[in-house]
Amino acid sequence: MYPSSIQKLIESFRTLPGVGEKTAERYALSVSDMNSEQVAQFAQSLIDVKQKLRRCRICGNLSDQEECEICRNPDRSHKQIFVVQSPKDIIAMEKAGEYRGVYHVLNGVISPSKGVMPEDLSIDQLVERAKDAEEVILATSNTMDGETTAMYLDRLLKEQFDGLLVTRIAHGLPAGGLLDYADEMTLAYALSNRHSMK
Amino acid sequence: MYPSSIQKLIESFRTLPGVGEKTAERYALSVSDMNSEQVAQFAQSLIDVKQKLRRCRICGNLSDQEECEICRNPDRSHKQIFVVQSPKDIIAMEKAGEYRGVYHVLNGVISPSKGVMPEDLSIDQLVERAKDAEEVILATSNTMDGETTAMYLDRLLKEQFDGLLVTRIAHGLPAGGLLDYADEMTLAYALSNRHSMK
Repeated sequence: MYPSSIQKLIESFRTLPGVGEKTAERYALSVSDMNSEQVAQFAQSLIDVKQKLRRCRICGNLSDQEECEICRNPDRSHKQIFVVQSPKDIIAMEKAGEYRGVYHVLNGVISPSKGVMPEDLSIDQLVERAKDAEEVILATSNTMDGETTAMYLDRLLKEQFDGLLVTRIAHGLPAGGLLDYADEMTLAYALSNRHSMK
Repeated sequence: MYPSSIQKLIESFRTLPGVGEKTAERYALSVSDMNSEQVAQFAQSLIDVKQKLRRCRICGNLSDQEECEICRNPDRSHKQIFVVQSPKDIIAMEKAGEYRGVYHVLNGVISPSKGVMPEDLSIDQLVERAKDAEEVILATSNTMDGETTAMYLDRLLKEQFDGLLVTRIAHGLPAGGLLDYADEMTLAYALSNRHSMK
């Protein structure tokens, strides 16, 4: 149906998450309307991401260098480690702009049903880093697997390091969240974790 | 927030129609998970579209060559010209697989309010091609501007070419369309254009 050049581009766009035939067509047609410079830049940035982007060797964050900007930053507390499932979680947290420590990316959560065992995650590296830490904040998600992983790490870290503070990030209703907009899981969790007011 | 390589890719994705910050981030992160070959192909297809894709010199359709596949096809009737607003309309029509004539892309519709006048469209070329045609089918959209353009072309073509058949594509309820799913404009149009049964 399409000239082969645009057909190939449609197929490339279709490999992106959540992009169907119609959307891929719309994207490809819009590329034909861009100027050459824009398109050249787009193509170059694709190649650069593949060639330059790597994982920070300390925390597993995405980085253009061997160590990520957060790990290289001397102004951040390296005694406080915020444990997340994926690099995307770091971005979300950094956007909030509240946290001044460093991170650790697990690359998933323990999930026996999906065949993900502790040895498949970067848990050994976390234990190694926790030696020099004062606090480890567990921020795996509030799902069955996320909670299991948090419990596992809590026990593991406390057993190995006496005096290490291991905390869990708070879950509940979102800020400004109206009760009738919250999903059932969040509401159930927020209710069962209610606390007396300080 | 992001390493600069991925930030640049996010910006490129944001130039696509309807792509916001979150979606661009998701696309860019997915590229970092693709294999090198896929990414190289993606980049190449972007460049190819810009370098190879052009407009057919006869009908204005998208093509990798000087004349599009439809205009070059001797099995199609070159006496029947289907007039559309944009190359996308040709794709839609070709997918239906019912039409065996050729096309003509106007590159828009006459719209005095948006400053688009007849001389801004490829109307001269259409008149030139209509000399050798038996039928011109007007398929501009069923909007105020689309109807105005169809009426303008109908008058222009009939004045110049005695005996040329000028037709308008039918509008109304879609095939299998339920009344309560149709929008008000379509319903109003379908009602006012009702006809006795044959």
